[in-house]
Amino acid sequence: MATEIPPDLSEVVTSGSSGQISSFCPQSWRMIHQNVVESRKLITMLASRVPGSFHFRTQTTPSGNKTRLYFLGMTSKGRENTLLFADLPPVVPENPSILSQWPLLDSFPASIPLSQLSREEQLLRERKRMGTYGITSYELVESEGKFVFPASNSLFSCSDPDITMTEPVFPVNISSSRVEGARLDPKLCPHNSQLLAFINQGDIWVANIEDNQECRLTYTNTGSGSLEDEPLSAGTPSFVVQEEFDRYTGYWWCPVTTGGATYCILYEEVDEGMVEILNIFSPSVEGKNVDQYRYPRAGTPNARSVLKLVKFSLDSEGKFCAVQHFQLLEPLLTFFPWMEYMVRAGWTPNGKHVYAELLDRQQKRMSLVLIPVDFFVPVRQFSDDDMEEDVFGRNIPPLTVLYEESSEIWVNTHDILHFLPHPNPSEIKFLWASEKSGFRHLYSVVSKLENCDRKMCAMDLLEENQDGQFKANVIKEVMLTSGDWEVNPKQIWVDEKRDIVYFVALKDSVLETHLYAVSYSKPSEPVRLTTPGYSHAVSLSADCSSFVSVYSSAKETTSCVVYKILHDNDRPMSTKSWGIIMPPIACPDYNAPELFQYQSQSGFTHHGLFFHPHGEEAGKKYPTVVMVYGGPQVQQVTNCFKGIRFLRHHALASNGYAVVVIDGRGSCGRGLKFESHIKNRLGTVEIEDQVEGLQYLSSAGYCVDMTRVGIHGWSYGGYLSLLGIAQRPDVFKVGIAGAPVVNWLLYDTGYTERYLNLPSENEAGYRNGSVLSHVDQFPDEENRILIIHGLIDENVHFHHTSALITALVKACKPYRLQIYPNERHGIRNHEASEHYKTMILSFLQNHL
Amino acid sequence: MATEIPPDLSEVVTSGSSGQISSFCPQSWRMIHQNVVESRKLITMLASRVPGSFHFRTQTTPSGNKTRLYFLGMTSKGRENTLLFADLPPVVPENPSILSQWPLLDSFPASIPLSQLSREEQLLRERKRMGTYGITSYELVESEGKFVFPASNSLFSCSDPDITMTEPVFPVNISSSRVEGARLDPKLCPHNSQLLAFINQGDIWVANIEDNQECRLTYTNTGSGSLEDEPLSAGTPSFVVQEEFDRYTGYWWCPVTTGGATYCILYEEVDEGMVEILNIFSPSVEGKNVDQYRYPRAGTPNARSVLKLVKFSLDSEGKFCAVQHFQLLEPLLTFFPWMEYMVRAGWTPNGKHVYAELLDRQQKRMSLVLIPVDFFVPVRQFSDDDMEEDVFGRNIPPLTVLYEESSEIWVNTHDILHFLPHPNPSEIKFLWASEKSGFRHLYSVVSKLENCDRKMCAMDLLEENQDGQFKANVIKEVMLTSGDWEVNPKQIWVDEKRDIVYFVALKDSVLETHLYAVSYSKPSEPVRLTTPGYSHAVSLSADCSSFVSVYSSAKETTSCVVYKILHDNDRPMSTKSWGIIMPPIACPDYNAPELFQYQSQSGFTHHGLFFHPHGEEAGKKYPTVVMVYGGPQVQQVTNCFKGIRFLRHHALASNGYAVVVIDGRGSCGRGLKFESHIKNRLGTVEIEDQVEGLQYLSSAGYCVDMTRVGIHGWSYGGYLSLLGIAQRPDVFKVGIAGAPVVNWLLYDTGYTERYLNLPSENEAGYRNGSVLSHVDQFPDEENRILIIHGLIDENVHFHHTSALITALVKACKPYRLQIYPNERHGIRNHEASEHYKTMILSFLQNHL
Repeated sequence: MATEIPPDLSEVVTSGSSGQISSFCPQSWRMIHQNVVESRKLITMLASRVPGSFHFRTQTTPSGNKTRLYFLGMTSKGRENTLLFADLPPVVPENPSILSQWPLLDSFPASIPLSQLSREEQLLRERKRMGTYGITSYELVESEGKFVFPASNSLFSCSDPDITMTEPVFPVNISSSRVEGARLDPKLCPHNSQLLAFINQGDIWVANIEDNQECRLTYTNTGSGSLEDEPLSAGTPSFVVQEEFDRYTGYWWCPVTTGGATYCILYEEVDEGMVEILNIFSPSVEGKNVDQYRYPRAGTPNARSVLKLVKFSLDSEGKFCAVQHFQLLEPLLTFFPWMEYMVRAGWTPNGKHVYAELLDRQQKRMSLVLIPVDFFVPVRQFSDDDMEEDVFGRNIPPLTVLYEESSEIWVNTHDILHFLPHPNPSEIKFLWASEKSGFRHLYSVVSKLENCDRKMCAMDLLEENQDGQFKANVIKEVMLTSGDWEVNPKQIWVDEKRDIVYFVALKDSVLETHLYAVSYSKPSEPVRLTTPGYSHAVSLSADCSSFVSVYSSAKETTSCVVYKILHDNDRPMSTKSWGIIMPPIACPDYNAPELFQYQSQSGFTHHGLFFHPHGEEAGKKYPTVVMVYGGPQVQQVTNCFKGIRFLRHHALASNGYAVVVIDGRGSCGRGLKFESHIKNRLGTVEIEDQVEGLQYLSSAGYCVDMTRVGIHGWSYGGYLSLLGIAQRPDVFKVGIAGAPVVNWLLYDTGYTERYLNLPSENEAGYRNGSVLSHVDQFPDEENRILIIHGLIDENVHFHHTSALITALVKACKPYRLQIYPNERHGIRNHEASEHYKTMILSFLQNHL
Repeated sequence: MATEIPPDLSEVVTSGSSGQISSFCPQSWRMIHQNVVESRKLITMLASRVPGSFHFRTQTTPSGNKTRLYFLGMTSKGRENTLLFADLPPVVPENPSILSQWPLLDSFPASIPLSQLSREEQLLRERKRMGTYGITSYELVESEGKFVFPASNSLFSCSDPDITMTEPVFPVNISSSRVEGARLDPKLCPHNSQLLAFINQGDIWVANIEDNQECRLTYTNTGSGSLEDEPLSAGTPSFVVQEEFDRYTGYWWCPVTTGGATYCILYEEVDEGMVEILNIFSPSVEGKNVDQYRYPRAGTPNARSVLKLVKFSLDSEGKFCAVQHFQLLEPLLTFFPWMEYMVRAGWTPNGKHVYAELLDRQQKRMSLVLIPVDFFVPVRQFSDDDMEEDVFGRNIPPLTVLYEESSEIWVNTHDILHFLPHPNPSEIKFLWASEKSGFRHLYSVVSKLENCDRKMCAMDLLEENQDGQFKANVIKEVMLTSGDWEVNPKQIWVDEKRDIVYFVALKDSVLETHLYAVSYSKPSEPVRLTTPGYSHAVSLSADCSSFVSVYSSAKETTSCVVYKILHDNDRPMSTKSWGIIMPPIACPDYNAPELFQYQSQSGFTHHGLFFHPHGEEAGKKYPTVVMVYGGPQVQQVTNCFKGIRFLRHHALASNGYAVVVIDGRGSCGRGLKFESHIKNRLGTVEIEDQVEGLQYLSSAGYCVDMTRVGIHGWSYGGYLSLLGIAQRPDVFKVGIAGAPVVNWLLYDTGYTERYLNLPSENEAGYRNGSVLSHVDQFPDEENRILIIHGLIDENVHFHHTSALITALVKACKPYRLQIYPNERHGIRNHEASEHYKTMILSFLQNHL
């Protein structure tokens, strides 16, 4: 329906594009800026209208079952994300229609200017690469229709108890005045939705939503205000665990009640005392001019984590009481001396065990460990004598290693772990993913539980597992999927009634993500549930009876459709459209990029995107920009609509440039072997794949002018932009490096050591991979290197750029530099973004 | 003699210059760099061969009086400054010859790389604008021929007892191992040359040179290593007193012995506890990445100083003992509540009084205060009760205000104060300089001493001087010089036998400094003692019988000649050459700049320098670069050889540019009125004077191409380069701003408040004077603004540039930026210097 699509969007698409296409004659800075401003309107529209964070909720009403779908998105008038809902028709129709969308909240302004966000929230947005405004996440208690969400530096709740209502509701601020600063990572207690836990200033708090009571549960932060004097935190993972292992939470409610009004939270206590403190230039005029961070550079000490429990009760008047802390009877390090990172943790569904996924420093060894709740003992002060005497002699419940894995390459961390019901109480069954076959696939695993009755002392436990070689107790392992394709590491959905696991994979095409289903009791060929020719992002309902897909192709804008999953014993599983949240929109002026592939000398087929210059004339060659990332964990070439995150590419194409994107060796989605070509030799193979791709395009008749090729990217892509110029100055005329890594010794442990090993173990790899080793190869001509960096980048620090410039000055090489004093690793503020885009368009116009 | 002139110098002059002159066709970056490297050799040679720091020493030998002249300079082979000497002929010859020079030290390497200098020494070099290497200062005890000097992070001594010897000597390292870190500001005890005081880590130490004994005298530094926890220091002035009032020492030996083996040092204890801490980005890979400084921005609290004494004795075995501290019985603030800065301090010659020159915060009021030594009492712990009861009731010796001055403009601080012998013990006579006539002139002053016998209590003292209005006790004041010209503020020499004061002034020409003499008992027209047509820097012997002049003119390179001063009652004083230390050298390829002057609309005659483009063709116009400073305290246009500090100017001229230097309103040497045109309105009048100068040159037929004018300067000149582009984009095509002040709110108290008053008192002045207020006027065209800044500049911080760029980004204006990560306010490292010069030559070639 028309109201769901912002009325001015198509106008903007038209005017924005046509304004750029017109002429390729040199433009003034101000003209370029004007075009950038126009095209920015398009970005804002396209980016914000895609809905997400879906929750199905079904209620039995007098007139039958009603299903309401909640999601985050923008109203036609809004400028920020808010909570919306759409009601699905009671019966799945033959011809699905566009569903009406309604705002759940009554004119609620959720956004505050970025600069007014708390430092923690700004950093969390950085770690999560969040670009949206307004409400960015929410929690829903399905049974009650209760919502909790963070907004404007506070926490809010609201209710939609009666699914038939359509009037918007007013959310209530559930933040008391007792807590200063941001409330982060809110989580409702799974068995008492009055209780909301959250993080404030590095400690865990719990609030009673009903009476605004708040109770601090942990006391790691002493309030000194000095980073140096505050090494501890509770419930928040360290920088590296967030940035490199994608875990953003450090506490977990026990999923079941432990009886009465007693509640239990598992949490991670992080000790960063050994981690180097990094000081980042801060552009504020007054105050300290500096921001401090704990940042472990490659080869330096990491943060250490221990698991703890906190229990508390509600007394007869509903007041918080009896807060008690529990620690591990013996640190996990005693049994797993090789452990460096705790990448995942949580509860088994019955609340009797806690699990922890441990990784060694080189990230080649992983153990999934099950810890009985009894292994946690009340925290009390031991003297050293007590320790000696007590611990090794005391009887402790045994740990179980559920699964272990080692790799000559590295073990990529994923989020796939689902404990299944299992009839034998001495065993445990779970779904898991592993890349041990070379590609990430699903496994169903049964492991034997250590007998909790068989109390043993820690010394015995250690002796039984000599050399720290705890053996995994796997007694049955079934590979559920197989083949030269990867299962997506983020999420699975499990229908325990039908023994079906739903997963997302690149099975049919490495360029398209689809939803698949496979039985884990009787594995067979997985069934694809989404339409081919598109790439899908899906969300299933809790009962796995329906799902939403947000999908698009390179040629078609994003659609959002709700599907019912149909099970018919005689036929394969199938789906039926239930309703349309968002149809694709017509973009008459949109020039879709062309997907292409080529064989590289390394033996692989590489995929690429080619953005033809607008108004391309047959036979004519055009200046070409390679937009590069090139590092691990990223796949740029997919059959998705390349409108939103690729508007720079379109802007270049509309200004008469051909634009090339190539996923070379090291990129993800192609299996571990493809990814691992860069292992221990970052910066030495990537450029060749880009160059071969260019040569292929040129020889295949694409309009690439090989005498006018530029290379531009950010972060790893900034690194490769510099290396491109240094290694192949014959191919690349200009390089534009955004926030480049210059020297891997300056980057963090978790990422760098995975790909390059420890500095002490791979001196040559660090040396060869450092841009500083190539400074003499940089051109003596001016305007061939442009470096761009945010001064307050706390990820790839400005130190990288300053180290490069120091070396360039020493070698007396020319360089161009643009800094953004208020930007971190990406450019967030729109004024900076416009300046950046104007600047590169102008630079390319003048120097490519 | 040929050996005194580096044999390769003239070759370098030739090849360096001719290499650049050849052609004006576009050059590659590498070619420009090559020329810069060549011209740098010339800089090094010209800069280092000028001798300085002269000391005469005369000894009676069997064959009559022998006079040896010691100085710092370079040997023909050396690359750094060392101690040299030359022996003067016993009789002043008719035709003076070039004197042989000998090194005093036997192959002594005094330099270490800049980066290995201690942080304190690096900062001291910054404050003193020191550019030389090797031995940069020394102290000589004339009677013994004993030398002490700092070098290589240590202190050394050596002796030249017998003036007839010419063999070089080996210096002895007099640093014991007890002290860590640099020994700064060494001073020999004036009446016991065994004792050497110095500063180490913010405290005063004393060493016995003979037995390497060292004794710490003050204990302000607690060794915490944290700037925040170390607000106090002893013997070292605060940043602002060094940078803005040119005082680099904070302790003074009592000039006379107090009897027996007891010694006394007056020192300043500085409390920076209230001063903001500034964090400067530091490019080091490891460690803290940040450097901390106490830096008072305009409008924020300054450091506070109190005067103290420390006395110590040597016991019978020569060991240090009986260290005792004394403080003022009552702080000076009680009597001078308006005092903000203690700009000068020291002893009267008889050691009975200490003097202190106090300045108020707005620098419009000054008092020279005399403090009897009895005013200092042993430091002991008072309780608050004691204080109340004691101080105001106790009898204290009275303070005397020797002189006071107030100005509607500001009071410039100078170094001219000389106490004269005076027959009346209840009076004190001294020579002094004041700008109260509008020009700095010498005065002889007699003030009445407060009667030290008339003990009075502090309360009485306060009541006698109500409203803090201590009156100066001046009973006689004689103006010794007068006219529309200025006496140099740095030094005078006094011949107390003949009642003659020798001074340097701009009397004959505002472009030339000369040595003058005038009687202070019978003042008459001063006698000029140096040759007109040159500008002279002079050093007199202690007895004022002879002097050295280092002189040059715009057309002639630097000479150094020793003169005898002749007194003949029948004739005016005269001089006679005694010997030549350095003759001028012929620079056949040297193109001297032309001095010019023009009348500005403000009614002043302005002076300028015009560097003609090499190979200038009649009638042809040339691109022109205005090399600007334009701020107060600096005079660029003088009749001096413009070879050493002006090589950038010559490099530009040799590359085909006309180069213009103009001293506009605000520059020094022209009197207070001329200087004060910028008062309260920095940044609003300076550019007009430059533009008028350009217009004059153009209309007078100089080869200025008014369509191709660039402006370039550093610091205040960087500020004006930005304002030039903003205010007169019609005149200036490009602006190159080195380390620019952008916002006066970010600059220091001492400088900024003198010229702009306090921010709270002159909001409009700060606003109009801020480059940030002019950002909208910056051009939209690219390559018209180039900003250059050292990242570790602790004077004009990189924050200035980052604030400007933040504003430019916001306004979406293009800019060019070059940073030097390891440079402070100037460019010191030669690699950075070469890069900088290459870069601006290239930038101008491409964009002017």
